[in-house]
Amino acid sequence: MNLLLLEPGELSPDGEVALTGDRARHLRDVLRVEAGREVRAGVLDGPIGSAEVLSVDGHGVRLRFSARRDPPERPAVDLLLAMPRPKVLKRLWSAIAALGVGRVMLTNAERVERYYFDSHAAQPVTWRPRLLEGLAQARDTRVPVVEVHRSLKILVEDRLDDAVGDARRLLADPAYARLVFDVARATPPDQRVLLALGPEGGWTPYERDLFERHGFVGVGLGPRILRSDTAVVALLALVHEARRAALDCQRR
Amino acid sequence: MNLLLLEPGELSPDGEVALTGDRARHLRDVLRVEAGREVRAGVLDGPIGSAEVLSVDGHGVRLRFSARRDPPERPAVDLLLAMPRPKVLKRLWSAIAALGVGRVMLTNAERVERYYFDSHAAQPVTWRPRLLEGLAQARDTRVPVVEVHRSLKILVEDRLDDAVGDARRLLADPAYARLVFDVARATPPDQRVLLALGPEGGWTPYERDLFERHGFVGVGLGPRILRSDTAVVALLALVHEARRAALDCQRR
Repeated sequence: MNLLLLEPGELSPDGEVALTGDRARHLRDVLRVEAGREVRAGVLDGPIGSAEVLSVDGHGVRLRFSARRDPPERPAVDLLLAMPRPKVLKRLWSAIAALGVGRVMLTNAERVERYYFDSHAAQPVTWRPRLLEGLAQARDTRVPVVEVHRSLKILVEDRLDDAVGDARRLLADPAYARLVFDVARATPPDQRVLLALGPEGGWTPYERDLFERHGFVGVGLGPRILRSDTAVVALLALVHEARRAALDCQRR
Repeated sequence: MNLLLLEPGELSPDGEVALTGDRARHLRDVLRVEAGREVRAGVLDGPIGSAEVLSVDGHGVRLRFSARRDPPERPAVDLLLAMPRPKVLKRLWSAIAALGVGRVMLTNAERVERYYFDSHAAQPVTWRPRLLEGLAQARDTRVPVVEVHRSLKILVEDRLDDAVGDARRLLADPAYARLVFDVARATPPDQRVLLALGPEGGWTPYERDLFERHGFVGVGLGPRILRSDTAVVALLALVHEARRAALDCQRR
């Protein structure tokens, strides 16, 4: 835990919070905090600062939070992801939040099994604690917004314009030779990026055509074809790095 | 399976091979091959080409392999990795092979639990099929060489010079501000890169000092701290991309 995350509703008007449960146990048993110690803390979708430990006992830990920095900016990359297998999805939540994503749109696709949608992994009760784990790891407070879409066609044709506005739309698929890094680096730094990634067997030609008719540019990761769980991590790392490189150029 | 992998010893002098087991089942039941069909194939640590299906029956599949391309080059990145938790390591093998690594050195470190070394995940019987799965996914034939080191000090002081020669040595740790992408891009394209990545709690100051005294340059991934399994994938993707970018520049 690199950042203690607090819910806005947990804080009293003067910033005090009484923790029990997992976070209290971690503070007490792993970090071994005592009264007076300060720990790095943040409020979900709010500012980052520090929390001073007021008291520790068998019931829990009391702290007082002080904001030191404005809320971090929402990560400028959104993810449109064909619903992964439940086992894979369960692992991906924390990695996605740690790498930094503003919005996750899980969607159906021809090569997605229907039962994936009913799995435990695709429910808020599963994704929320895992997203928070990833945020605490990466020291962020911005909880990714998650949406589940049962129809790719309706999502792309009717919802995307409202949801992501004029984001740069990238369609990741081994079918494309243009490299994701180059395209992301050429995107204006103030424009958001929406990254669409297909299921294990890839998007179908019909789906690729649907994306292309709605402004998506096809991008690949080079000659090595990655499994989609590895590809999510690699793509997010590369897009973030490309955007940082673009921003560096602009600042010079 | 994007590439059917064959062991050199499986091939008769005229390139014929009789497969049973998992690969035969995959060809028959998933790809539904019939006599006359060609599938993309490669020989482990050897050339890539195609295999013509000669016959399919209940016992297995007979094919004839023809090399079309020289063996791919060994990936120019090696990995020195503090032994991960068994569950994490088991998952990492195929991702590492898919992303492309020449050599994997697993090592002890202060924050590594000793029992990790006795786990099933750290045995060739576990890693070899998973490495081959990653190679088949990424269409590579170069099997990463794996070594297990019980002492980080002996590895760094006595073994590295012979093992990786004059590779550019990078030490990944959130302690460093310099970005791995920038350092990897500035490395001459014909120089190998050795990337050292610590355990979940990071390298200790003593270990960082040991690395630095032996030519390692500290690099980070930016302000977001990643769990080590996510960091392995992100780092390998970024280093490969940085080296491609460097090579592109040189060619212009």
